[in-house]
Amino acid sequence: MEPKDTNKKIGKLYGLGVGPGDPELMTLKAARLIRECHAIVIPASGKETNVAFEIAKGAVPEIEAKELLEISMPMIRDEIKLKQSHDKAAAFVISELEKGKDIAFLTLGDPSIYSTYIYIHNRVAAQGYETEIVPGIPSFCAVAARLNEGLTEASEALHVIPASYEGIEEALALKGTRVLMKSGKSIGKVKAILEQMENPPTVKMVERCGMQGERVFTRLEDLDEEASYFSILIVKDNGKIT
Amino acid sequence: MEPKDTNKKIGKLYGLGVGPGDPELMTLKAARLIRECHAIVIPASGKETNVAFEIAKGAVPEIEAKELLEISMPMIRDEIKLKQSHDKAAAFVISELEKGKDIAFLTLGDPSIYSTYIYIHNRVAAQGYETEIVPGIPSFCAVAARLNEGLTEASEALHVIPASYEGIEEALALKGTRVLMKSGKSIGKVKAILEQMENPPTVKMVERCGMQGERVFTRLEDLDEEASYFSILIVKDNGKIT
Repeated sequence: MEPKDTNKKIGKLYGLGVGPGDPELMTLKAARLIRECHAIVIPASGKETNVAFEIAKGAVPEIEAKELLEISMPMIRDEIKLKQSHDKAAAFVISELEKGKDIAFLTLGDPSIYSTYIYIHNRVAAQGYETEIVPGIPSFCAVAARLNEGLTEASEALHVIPASYEGIEEALALKGTRVLMKSGKSIGKVKAILEQMENPPTVKMVERCGMQGERVFTRLEDLDEEASYFSILIVKDNGKIT
Repeated sequence: MEPKDTNKKIGKLYGLGVGPGDPELMTLKAARLIRECHAIVIPASGKETNVAFEIAKGAVPEIEAKELLEISMPMIRDEIKLKQSHDKAAAFVISELEKGKDIAFLTLGDPSIYSTYIYIHNRVAAQGYETEIVPGIPSFCAVAARLNEGLTEASEALHVIPASYEGIEEALALKGTRVLMKSGKSIGKVKAILEQMENPPTVKMVERCGMQGERVFTRLEDLDEEASYFSILIVKDNGKIT
């Protein structure tokens, strides 16, 4: 048997949040790492893909000269197939790290909040490879900025709820500010729940915040049920003056 | 009466999130605006003050040449006095905007999440002045990155709770990931609540994430009850494998 080459350079995986849409909302660190990494990974499926790449390109045009690795990460409901898909994607990333490449895996918003990256991250880290999460601005912070208002004050709670959440009715009734992520298809359902509340809350929605086709809705009754996947609802108790 | 000078340049107020601690986690936009604004506002009280300025300086050394306006924003419990203090701070900011200055009001983390800036913002905006919130990386995203793990996956909820929250016991029992902000003094109380839970959750804490004196705690029993105000707890249900 040949001795293992212990001097072999192994790459590092960066899960890189590019923020919510506006390239200027990328961090200095994300911009630097895109310049420094050898290869860029984007999921080949899904709408988030090219969005993340386009955001990064807006801030760091040099990204176009980098090696671009597209990996298949279909949005599957079947749990076993989904895990297999994540295993396969992680194995691919590892094979590239083994070639000595530092890799920036682009993810919309922040990698720690509802990103598909985290499934790859966990697998790659568990196998002993060097990994790092690089925070990005979460979409709901950009939505608050777009609405020009705060999300939470003083001793209020902030509840971030994916639209696919099982106990959505209960979650919408929590005290404090409620943020509904990736609302898309469930806007109709959520609207109906909110309309029936005893003390109707203040509801606003931003679709495609900071991206082309952005739309802002400031009244519950105006919410477009046909709005895209990139829609975020902010639900607040009414009428506090600070 | 003299006619009002309608050509007079009025400044714009930027509520500028400098992120959680690492200067490189500032956004490109925040860095640009610090360079472009005429004056920088920081609250003169409180520990957050100089922290925000130091972060900004780490990314944009030119900030030292800017006019620095310190405003008094004491942490008062009395609601009336607190409002008076906010009114006074807002009036001061307006007087500076009236001089034609564009102002960057520095705030730690993201301005829309538990910042004292938002009280000034609301007042200045309500009086018809131009205002803009510039998102920053929230501290809990940096904490997740520091722990090298995600906050939420797929259909989980994320609950962000200030340590001063009234229904803290109830909030700690919510399903999904619970983030406790600015824990400091309440760590002992929170620890006691968590220890008594039927299914003890996984609890981690990062103190002064990305700053000097950073400490990471990965077991509930290790949490230092004397840790600083800048401590964030992450509470997760146990043992999910993804």
